[in-house]
Amino acid sequence: MSIYVVGHQNPDTDSICAAVTLANLKQELGEDVEAIRCGKVNAETEFILDKFNIEAPKLVEKLNKGDEVFLVDHNEASQAIAGLEEAELTGVVDHHRIGGLETSGPIYFRNETVGCTSTIITKMYKENNVEITDEMAGLLLSAILSDTVIFRSPTCTEEDKEIANELASQLGLDVEEYGKELFKAGSVVNVLSAKELVTNDYKEYEFAGDTIGVGQIEIMSLDEVNDDKKGEILNAIDEIVEEKGYKFLLLMVTDIIEEGSLLLYNPEAKDIIAEAFDVEVEETEVYLDGVLSRKKQIIPVLSDYLA
Amino acid sequence: MSIYVVGHQNPDTDSICAAVTLANLKQELGEDVEAIRCGKVNAETEFILDKFNIEAPKLVEKLNKGDEVFLVDHNEASQAIAGLEEAELTGVVDHHRIGGLETSGPIYFRNETVGCTSTIITKMYKENNVEITDEMAGLLLSAILSDTVIFRSPTCTEEDKEIANELASQLGLDVEEYGKELFKAGSVVNVLSAKELVTNDYKEYEFAGDTIGVGQIEIMSLDEVNDDKKGEILNAIDEIVEEKGYKFLLLMVTDIIEEGSLLLYNPEAKDIIAEAFDVEVEETEVYLDGVLSRKKQIIPVLSDYLA
Repeated sequence: MSIYVVGHQNPDTDSICAAVTLANLKQELGEDVEAIRCGKVNAETEFILDKFNIEAPKLVEKLNKGDEVFLVDHNEASQAIAGLEEAELTGVVDHHRIGGLETSGPIYFRNETVGCTSTIITKMYKENNVEITDEMAGLLLSAILSDTVIFRSPTCTEEDKEIANELASQLGLDVEEYGKELFKAGSVVNVLSAKELVTNDYKEYEFAGDTIGVGQIEIMSLDEVNDDKKGEILNAIDEIVEEKGYKFLLLMVTDIIEEGSLLLYNPEAKDIIAEAFDVEVEETEVYLDGVLSRKKQIIPVLSDYLA
Repeated sequence: MSIYVVGHQNPDTDSICAAVTLANLKQELGEDVEAIRCGKVNAETEFILDKFNIEAPKLVEKLNKGDEVFLVDHNEASQAIAGLEEAELTGVVDHHRIGGLETSGPIYFRNETVGCTSTIITKMYKENNVEITDEMAGLLLSAILSDTVIFRSPTCTEEDKEIANELASQLGLDVEEYGKELFKAGSVVNVLSAKELVTNDYKEYEFAGDTIGVGQIEIMSLDEVNDDKKGEILNAIDEIVEEKGYKFLLLMVTDIIEEGSLLLYNPEAKDIIAEAFDVEVEETEVYLDGVLSRKKQIIPVLSDYLA
């Protein structure tokens, strides 16, 4: 029977892409392996698999006695597929802390301090002189952009960048543009309903007897919120304001790349926001450049103005 | 302060050579590292360091808070230098089972299923395009020959052989010949006294009211026991026979490469051995080809003859 290659529970893009690409590399090297997953494919990963025309790996929820397994993107038993203790562990490729794993005999165990498992797998293709097909290059690139938040994560290294840039150049893709496309596909905006977006990370405040609500979502690009979505969010805001008897409700749509927030609000907030922040505003929105923190940049200003 | 590179407690040749060569590689790559050891250099390793004109790494018995350390040839805390839990672990290169190590953050951890850590380090020189000096090639080759018992250990892989052969060819050394030289230098014959050689692995037997003794040592080549040493051993045998009132005493000097045993004994045993084994014997020695096991090949024959 094939050796399973599998990422962690609640797989993210790297866990799926690393499993698929490492299985591909090992197959090219003549090994009998099969990529599997132990959880649901998320929206971002689904977009990537569709784009590069690769089927999601088979779902296996639990290993059985006698199964052989190779872990990617994790090395802690607590994060691994159920039944690991029954199976025979044959190897690990990862980029996390070392988490107390024990084996009875020697195994291949490769952990590097890079931003993404797929960076290491790209190196393994090179070390073994195996050509990386465009499909596999697509998965590897996507995983690196996902794990490093398009090179912005503090865990991102020069090696991640170099390798991602090489892969992007093979595919003729612009790293920044494709990265944003990928994050947009996996964005909360596409996963949550308008009402859930408003209330997902949400707080109420009392100022001089009035109650207001401030929600926040973080996204990679304001493009993720198109006019239709904006309309739905504003409707949800109106509903909640009426239901709760708020003075007003703000949703901070924070662009973590551009480092600014689009505020969406019910029309009653328009003048308050214009005066409190001393800015020109639209009827139900305003973009505040440099504003990222509800706690430090929004609430104190409203508190001062409303007090 | 430099990062220490260190092998396990009671260091063998691989633990010393891997520390020295990995430190050399890292220095060539511009890292501030220093090879250390946490125990005595054994006779084999001393021979190797002398031969390639390399000083033994500094002895450090315990790490202090704030020390940074990189482990080679082991990954289990219980086998590591004292004070490891106080220090900051920055990496591991090894070829053993995974032994439950935990770190707070990601580290470099490379474990491969090869016969010797120095095989992996040779690969690392190549991966980083760093030239291997003759001195370093000598240490790497020696460690591989030592750990794999000149390619005879079941843990030895094709990769160990290929790499050792490349290193030997760089140095103009014959692998078999140099390997035996190395094992001879580290042989028990050079480490133990004549009396200790006889009694190191020793058993008494009773046959029809007579007591006999049979000792065994395992060596890589009978050349390790020269005529002087043989004389010393025979004197030790005579002394013990007299002291204990034995009928006779045999020492099996087993050549694990040639797969045979030289028996050394007091003259009283001569006829018994000749008749029991049906061979022609010298006054105090005989070589028995194919005889390796005291339990299966010596004791049953003597038991039958003496009963």
